Amino acid sequence: MKALVYRGPKDVRVEEMPDAKLEKPTDVLVRITATNICGSDLHMYEGRTNMEAGRILGHENLGEVIEIGKAVDRVKVGDMVCLPFNIGCGFCANCERGLSGYCLTANPGTAGAAYGFAGMGPYSGGQAEMLRVPYGDFNCLVLPDDAKEKENDYVMLSDIFATGYHATELASVKPGDSVVIYGAGPVGLMAATSAFIKGASLVFVVDSHKDRLALAEKMGAIPIDDSDAGGVEQVLHLTDGQGADCGCECVGFQCCNMHGKEVPHLTMNNLVQTVKATGSIGVVGVFIPEDPNAQDALAKEGKIAFDFGKFWFKGQRIATGQANVKAYNRSLAKLIHAGKAKPSMIVSHELSLHDAPMAYENFDKRTSGWTKVILKPGK
Amino acid sequence: MKALVYRGPKDVRVEEMPDAKLEKPTDVLVRITATNICGSDLHMYEGRTNMEAGRILGHENLGEVIEIGKAVDRVKVGDMVCLPFNIGCGFCANCERGLSGYCLTANPGTAGAAYGFAGMGPYSGGQAEMLRVPYGDFNCLVLPDDAKEKENDYVMLSDIFATGYHATELASVKPGDSVVIYGAGPVGLMAATSAFIKGASLVFVVDSHKDRLALAEKMGAIPIDDSDAGGVEQVLHLTDGQGADCGCECVGFQCCNMHGKEVPHLTMNNLVQTVKATGSIGVVGVFIPEDPNAQDALAKEGKIAFDFGKFWFKGQRIATGQANVKAYNRSLAKLIHAGKAKPSMIVSHELSLHDAPMAYENFDKRTSGWTKVILKPGK
Amino acid sequence: MKALVYRGPKDVRVEEMPDAKLEKPTDVLVRITATNICGSDLHMYEGRTNMEAGRILGHENLGEVIEIGKAVDRVKVGDMVCLPFNIGCGFCANCERGLSGYCLTANPGTAGAAYGFAGMGPYSGGQAEMLRVPYGDFNCLVLPDDAKEKENDYVMLSDIFATGYHATELASVKPGDSVVIYGAGPVGLMAATSAFIKGASLVFVVDSHKDRLALAEKMGAIPIDDSDAGGVEQVLHLTDGQGADCGCECVGFQCCNMHGKEVPHLTMNNLVQTVKATGSIGVVGVFIPEDPNAQDALAKEGKIAFDFGKFWFKGQRIATGQANVKAYNRSLAKLIHAGKAKPSMIVSHELSLHDAPMAYENFDKRTSGWTKVILKPGK
Amino acid sequence: MKALVYRGPKDVRVEEMPDAKLEKPTDVLVRITATNICGSDLHMYEGRTNMEAGRILGHENLGEVIEIGKAVDRVKVGDMVCLPFNIGCGFCANCERGLSGYCLTANPGTAGAAYGFAGMGPYSGGQAEMLRVPYGDFNCLVLPDDAKEKENDYVMLSDIFATGYHATELASVKPGDSVVIYGAGPVGLMAATSAFIKGASLVFVVDSHKDRLALAEKMGAIPIDDSDAGGVEQVLHLTDGQGADCGCECVGFQCCNMHGKEVPHLTMNNLVQTVKATGSIGVVGVFIPEDPNAQDALAKEGKIAFDFGKFWFKGQRIATGQANVKAYNRSLAKLIHAGKAKPSMIVSHELSLHDAPMAYENFDKRTSGWTKVILKPGK
Repeated sequence: MKALVYRGPKDVRVEEMPDAKLEKPTDVLVRITATNICGSDLHMYEGRTNMEAGRILGHENLGEVIEIGKAVDRVKVGDMVCLPFNIGCGFCANCERGLSGYCLTANPGTAGAAYGFAGMGPYSGGQAEMLRVPYGDFNCLVLPDDAKEKENDYVMLSDIFATGYHATELASVKPGDSVVIYGAGPVGLMAATSAFIKGASLVFVVDSHKDRLALAEKMGAIPIDDSDAGGVEQVLHLTDGQGADCGCECVGFQCCNMHGKEVPHLTMNNLVQTVKATGSIGVVGVFIPEDPNAQDALAKEGKIAFDFGKFWFKGQRIATGQANVKAYNRSLAKLIHAGKAKPSMIVSHELSLHDAPMAYENFDKRTSGWTKVILKPGK
Repeated sequence: MKALVYRGPKDVRVEEMPDAKLEKPTDVLVRITATNICGSDLHMYEGRTNMEAGRILGHENLGEVIEIGKAVDRVKVGDMVCLPFNIGCGFCANCERGLSGYCLTANPGTAGAAYGFAGMGPYSGGQAEMLRVPYGDFNCLVLPDDAKEKENDYVMLSDIFATGYHATELASVKPGDSVVIYGAGPVGLMAATSAFIKGASLVFVVDSHKDRLALAEKMGAIPIDDSDAGGVEQVLHLTDGQGADCGCECVGFQCCNMHGKEVPHLTMNNLVQTVKATGSIGVVGVFIPEDPNAQDALAKEGKIAFDFGKFWFKGQRIATGQANVKAYNRSLAKLIHAGKAKPSMIVSHELSLHDAPMAYENFDKRTSGWTKVILKPGK
Repeated sequence: MKALVYRGPKDVRVEEMPDAKLEKPTDVLVRITATNICGSDLHMYEGRTNMEAGRILGHENLGEVIEIGKAVDRVKVGDMVCLPFNIGCGFCANCERGLSGYCLTANPGTAGAAYGFAGMGPYSGGQAEMLRVPYGDFNCLVLPDDAKEKENDYVMLSDIFATGYHATELASVKPGDSVVIYGAGPVGLMAATSAFIKGASLVFVVDSHKDRLALAEKMGAIPIDDSDAGGVEQVLHLTDGQGADCGCECVGFQCCNMHGKEVPHLTMNNLVQTVKATGSIGVVGVFIPEDPNAQDALAKEGKIAFDFGKFWFKGQRIATGQANVKAYNRSLAKLIHAGKAKPSMIVSHELSLHDAPMAYENFDKRTSGWTKVILKPGK
Repeated sequence: MKALVYRGPKDVRVEEMPDAKLEKPTDVLVRITATNICGSDLHMYEGRTNMEAGRILGHENLGEVIEIGKAVDRVKVGDMVCLPFNIGCGFCANCERGLSGYCLTANPGTAGAAYGFAGMGPYSGGQAEMLRVPYGDFNCLVLPDDAKEKENDYVMLSDIFATGYHATELASVKPGDSVVIYGAGPVGLMAATSAFIKGASLVFVVDSHKDRLALAEKMGAIPIDDSDAGGVEQVLHLTDGQGADCGCECVGFQCCNMHGKEVPHLTMNNLVQTVKATGSIGVVGVFIPEDPNAQDALAKEGKIAFDFGKFWFKGQRIATGQANVKAYNRSLAKLIHAGKAKPSMIVSHELSLHDAPMAYENFDKRTSGWTKVILKPGK
């Protein structure tokens, strides 16, 4: 089968690879019809992780079930399914509490597994024609009859819609709340959409890319242009000096200051300032335990110079981590089905698998207008 | 009246001061019968805050109502009352949600007020013969008929019992959980008691003072002697390498390493290591927004070198801040009344107000055996 | 002052009454500019309660502060304020937990007080030119600068918007949920609006009045005409036979079957059928402990023939009671202010106080088109 | 293998039956070493259900894994396991939210499956030498190394300890609360134990059997003898007329009044009276959708004459249903392992499988001293 293979920093290629196949009786085999490039793919693409050369990337996957293992009870051949990026077993101490992003079985020795991801187990990614899905009954979200028509919406349930929503869960967004979101990338925009779904009254989205801020505004959010580092002041001004009721971090450790320099603590310390006392901050932007290629001494050890004194004095809360996609994907699918959510609105490019290397290059450069890319392996 | 007055770093004196009196129709006047010295009094005592000379200290107060304002409906003269250390109004956006520690009225411009505390408003403390209690109907916990007999228990509801309990709330301790607590001072010990009240299966208390660890063990906790910095390893060993289900920080910014040097990030980074993935950490130890007298550059700005990458990767949560005492004091009072909780077990000294300066000196030096001091102004 | 006075069953009159005035230092005096007639006023109007003749009705009130007591700190003369229908003290065991609808102080011997309401204390209602507001700092919601422009929206915060929202809280409505609501009166319609605010995917509103069902449809809900008692079947059909995720009861004890006969258990048993296993039902329709004028033997004692076996077997939950308005009114006011909620859309009549008797008559008869009446005493 | 077979009302026999065996690759086969007789077995024993003759009873099972299917990953041969009475799949909409008692897969057409239970699917019970466990990885709780030594404690995790705990969850018992429990049978006693684990200050247990009340008292609860129907008054007297903070129903539809007559609404209406306004009531006693053999007309239809008016007026909540055992069994196992819970204290008889018919007879007659029976098939 054809697949997008990681060959080294900034080197990904579409190659012929062995077909994905069933390996265990609980597996399901899926022919991929839509698979996105994610911002977190770029950490690997740029060589900032220990990703092994030769592996297939891609953790935002949707397709048709073409074969099922003997122990699969629920999923049927022909079902259109969306796959959560995280792989859970369904029976460990974490999965059974809904924490499927921290599965203790699928990636022994760590909490959490994923397709085509550094440090998240040996699983191949789905930027390919086929994908093996472990624990198929647990991991497949079977889609309703508008699955093909709304494919570009449903595929967002594999990661970014669920992840944006997770940010608002971690931040405890409630009806009437004001919310400040750092990052107007795909996840930040999905967090904004999610905040409105939950009844937020005001949503501020902070970024320095004008095209992305324009998308945020189109969604009903208040765009805050931080390209001159004045974002904190603007948000405080718009919230009577108190800060927003809650905040979301949708950038991660590679956040840059106005001079383009990576300053890992920047968004977190700004959130402490722009969220009110007693408010909560949800952090879904990726931070990593060690970053040997970082320039800063603290950053190399995965540490940040965090404004803990102010944070404590304000009695704030932080909740972090990757989304437990299964905790949200059924509910969000209902909203898509009912026409109440349309996450595909952020899609800028729908390309063939063949175009993937070119798409990675543009997405990585933040070329204006490249907001979100969907690859269609079948086309 | 006689009162304990702050005169400067390590200089507190019992002096004759003007009698406390009613100032507003919602005030209540209390004759203090028990008032504790708190670990956070030591931050002021040592000159690490901007406390004004001439102010009366003391925020852990209990006594008898001797006069009430014209607008007071509930509290009666003769009632024995315990006063939360934080002063709330009862009607602001925070108080009405139970966040009385972040009252927006009592200390305008900031969230939160307290008796005799730096930066928490102009209110006099209760290490004195009398105390003015603002918003008396809201702030007084009227005690049951065993108030005098169990005075040394009930007075702990003013702060440390509620604060220790708050740590376990912030850490989301649930029945069956294992809990790791950093700090075996009065608050850490109260957190241990609270964890057991909530049904914890295992409680680890980490400290380097042997007398305090012995008290923790007496309570049923597992003492972890960290005097050789081996605490992290011990806790991991006792939790199959996973870490405890949740954690409590009961030390604060003045935490010291094994060489006695202040290392403000020490307990937090150790907690990230000793709490399992997806676990929560409750932080009630005080951290401050700026600390000009600190030696470390980050510390001067109230920042710590926080292990954010590991924290995020483990999908943990932190919740912080001073206890909203009123959220807990009624329930905890019922446990004292029913004989299910006996917080006075940590009291080491019961002294007259006259002895307060000597008590401050010993408590500040961590003189062995000086765990918790109650002053009895009436005696 | 002029006021609407209850004189007996179906007999209310606008009369000259003594001016409302401050009685305690915590009181606030309000000149009423908008005051609604509520469905629960009809229970009194019809003589189904023990309401005393001579009392002023009206518990949905908004106006301008014209005088404040000496102990009032927060509210100022000139503030436009909306008053929760329930009167809380702010400091009892219930108020301090946010259960201001069950205040233990304002109506001694019972939990809960209200303006102009049978069995809810001696307080006069606000269908009058002036209203005394006890515990003014606690009870007044001070409105923002668009208070006059959006008066017809904000006045709904006194009761029905908060009550409809409470129904969805009690029913645990979450994003993506389907919700079935019994009753398309003002409260049912506000519950539908609230469900959408919370991100419901589908909202079914069951009633037999076509004009009200049309309003529900206009809001985006699916109208279910139950005039032939086929509502249960329709809802089950639209939910794959499972029932909705959650349900709201917005009718109360006077619910009638298709023949116009009062059958108090009707909506509750239908909800048990139309809500899925493990689902929750929020009940804000009024049920009363005794109803001597009822025809049915069980009903006289306030009992219903409840389908408890099916309810238990499905593992459902019921939560009940009047709304704790203060728990919601700040958040909902933010949504009105931001233009995200427009509860005035259900207003059918805006009348002078003088027209109140005529309005009661029409509202009580469910005259077609009489959905919600606002009285404007000042005009 | 030997097994206890239901032959008809009050007729159960130990017979030779075909060996249990693996049927699907996700199955696990267990050699039963401990299996309890449950109060809900008596509903079947008495012929009050549609239980089919010829089926093996027993849903409280513990034993050793002797064979595993090819798709089983986690459970190993030789593991000692405790089996939740409810059978879940682990991947349906309910199981994935922790509602394993309402599995949509294991008993198609209904929500919920169980071993050897009327209406809960075709699964054989475990009062036998062997048991087939479906979805073994999901359903087996693997026990720690003290499994054999504390077998009589761990076996209670299959049902009654989890069910008693569930009652306190449904009732929202919190530290400091007072709790009133109707029923001092095994489940009621486990609810009392659970309430104490959660930090209850006072626990009232209401029953009319003196031997069971004595056990409740031994646990630290306050026994309320209701044999003269004076229980309500006693509880109100002991709670200052307010009622307890929360309540648990642990009796079910066969509750009897002081004259021994079945009155299905009795405990529920008493709970409405003895729980305070705003309090919650957890109902784990079994109520059934229809009961053709009941004498009362309402009862035949599974209805009760419920005091809904008083319930609503007090703003109370009811939550119901069978326990989702998996939601609790890991945590409760930790408490047993740590020596903090000893549910075996209610065991009155430890018998061989051979003695089961005699045990059913005595347990059904409520013979004094027959509190809880454990059968040991291997012995």
